[in-house]
Amino acid sequence: MSFIVLIDILGVVAFSISGVLTSMRKKMDLFGIFIIAFVTSVGGGTLRDVLLDVPVAWLTNMTYVYTIAITSTVAILFRSKLAYLRKSLFLFDTIGIGLYTVVGIEKAIEAGLHPVICVFFGTMSACFGGVIRDILCNEIPVIFRKEIYATACIIGGLAYFLSLKVKVPEDFVFVIAAVVVISIRLLAVIFKISLPSIYQKENTV
Amino acid sequence: MSFIVLIDILGVVAFSISGVLTSMRKKMDLFGIFIIAFVTSVGGGTLRDVLLDVPVAWLTNMTYVYTIAITSTVAILFRSKLAYLRKSLFLFDTIGIGLYTVVGIEKAIEAGLHPVICVFFGTMSACFGGVIRDILCNEIPVIFRKEIYATACIIGGLAYFLSLKVKVPEDFVFVIAAVVVISIRLLAVIFKISLPSIYQKENTV
Amino acid sequence: MSFIVLIDILGVVAFSISGVLTSMRKKMDLFGIFIIAFVTSVGGGTLRDVLLDVPVAWLTNMTYVYTIAITSTVAILFRSKLAYLRKSLFLFDTIGIGLYTVVGIEKAIEAGLHPVICVFFGTMSACFGGVIRDILCNEIPVIFRKEIYATACIIGGLAYFLSLKVKVPEDFVFVIAAVVVISIRLLAVIFKISLPSIYQKENTV
Repeated sequence: MSFIVLIDILGVVAFSISGVLTSMRKKMDLFGIFIIAFVTSVGGGTLRDVLLDVPVAWLTNMTYVYTIAITSTVAILFRSKLAYLRKSLFLFDTIGIGLYTVVGIEKAIEAGLHPVICVFFGTMSACFGGVIRDILCNEIPVIFRKEIYATACIIGGLAYFLSLKVKVPEDFVFVIAAVVVISIRLLAVIFKISLPSIYQKENTV
Repeated sequence: MSFIVLIDILGVVAFSISGVLTSMRKKMDLFGIFIIAFVTSVGGGTLRDVLLDVPVAWLTNMTYVYTIAITSTVAILFRSKLAYLRKSLFLFDTIGIGLYTVVGIEKAIEAGLHPVICVFFGTMSACFGGVIRDILCNEIPVIFRKEIYATACIIGGLAYFLSLKVKVPEDFVFVIAAVVVISIRLLAVIFKISLPSIYQKENTV
Repeated sequence: MSFIVLIDILGVVAFSISGVLTSMRKKMDLFGIFIIAFVTSVGGGTLRDVLLDVPVAWLTNMTYVYTIAITSTVAILFRSKLAYLRKSLFLFDTIGIGLYTVVGIEKAIEAGLHPVICVFFGTMSACFGGVIRDILCNEIPVIFRKEIYATACIIGGLAYFLSLKVKVPEDFVFVIAAVVVISIRLLAVIFKISLPSIYQKENTV
């Protein structure tokens, strides 16, 4: 479905640029920047495929490598202009995690796994590229501290299985789950919602 | 064997709580805490299974996920009381690494590997969950600096193959190796034993 | 071919010593030092084999483990003398990455992958042991900031496929690619060449 491919590429673009930005903040060289862009884009899916013991997607699909290479080059060249694109990038990224979550869930279902594990794989596909990016940049992964990102994926995953249970037609299940992830992320950012902290003044959760 | 299952669950409980404690020290959010508890518990075994190219245990056994989820939740709720449990936790953790070491060795034997590599896999199963925990928390892994932890696993592994060689019945080999790991760790902590340092005053090893 | 085996062992020796040096700077204990020496030597190849889903080489070839164990022990005992060997070590390391690059490329070709991905796998085989070493030592990987190292592997990879295309006999392709990697690295270090920075005074690349 060419719409999915387009969304997938937009997600890779957004993730690549986030990798470029993080690695440039660490004063990495061109090789480092490209590698960080690469792992940010495909790291979550790679971990997923290795754990499921299925072929890693980017090994045989050159679209990923080309998209990442072109995006990184353009992002480096126009790095002083990236600030103007912040809103578009945020939107791409949000659409990207919505899509990646559903792809991760469906790969785990195909492997015959339990729904809870499938939701976990959806979240991993969407979020662990960023985790590997942050580890390579020697920082504590940002999604372990700002949780609406991963929480959106988890709730989207629950929406997926709920839709399946109430017999929503399969094509719609995909759309519903992705829309749930995207809406929660958008609403959380717009209204500055975050989960209750367990640290401030030591309130119980 | 239900005794083994019980020990395994106690090990997961101890490792989860150690993950919760480390991640809370880093002020992670609920998602981060759960992920750190998860990787601390199953990270070593996951790396082992991926390297051996056998199915990853927690993908198809929900006991791990449920145990980790419940333990983490309870640990977060009663976090101010965890100090009272320090000794029990230490005991669970020590029993856990004893068991994990033997499980790792036996999986590597099944894969037909050399005894030295098997001991290595036993140690990895027991210790690398903690290594991944520390990397995700942006610290140098603690077991690379306080070595009796891993050393206990290695000596336990040697005991395993020594017992095999002198024809100890198979069930006892398991028990002997685990007891060796557990005893060395307990004695090392009680008597504050550590390997000779190679740094203080630059003495030769 | 026994010459290749010799070169491979020299590469493992050089990588092990670089692991020993980095981990001693972090005041790690004996276990930590050995593990860091180990991952520096075999980490890149392990990641390659896991991604390609082929058996991991060191699981069944004890040469690696013995070479790393002996090298690390000798390096720790004679640590105060290592400075005198700096030039030999640099040479071993450089020959090592030349060889590892070609081995990585050939394994990827065997797996039927696209040339671009093969070059990527060559570079990964040569460089990612050092990346994992730096992550475990809680530092930003050095090759993400001093790029001639990885760039040499990439250019060597291009030389490999170029030689193939112009029908150079297969045995020579191997040699040519390795020599290109080694020469570029040597020249870059001797003449202090590095890629243009994208940071100083914010010049465009």
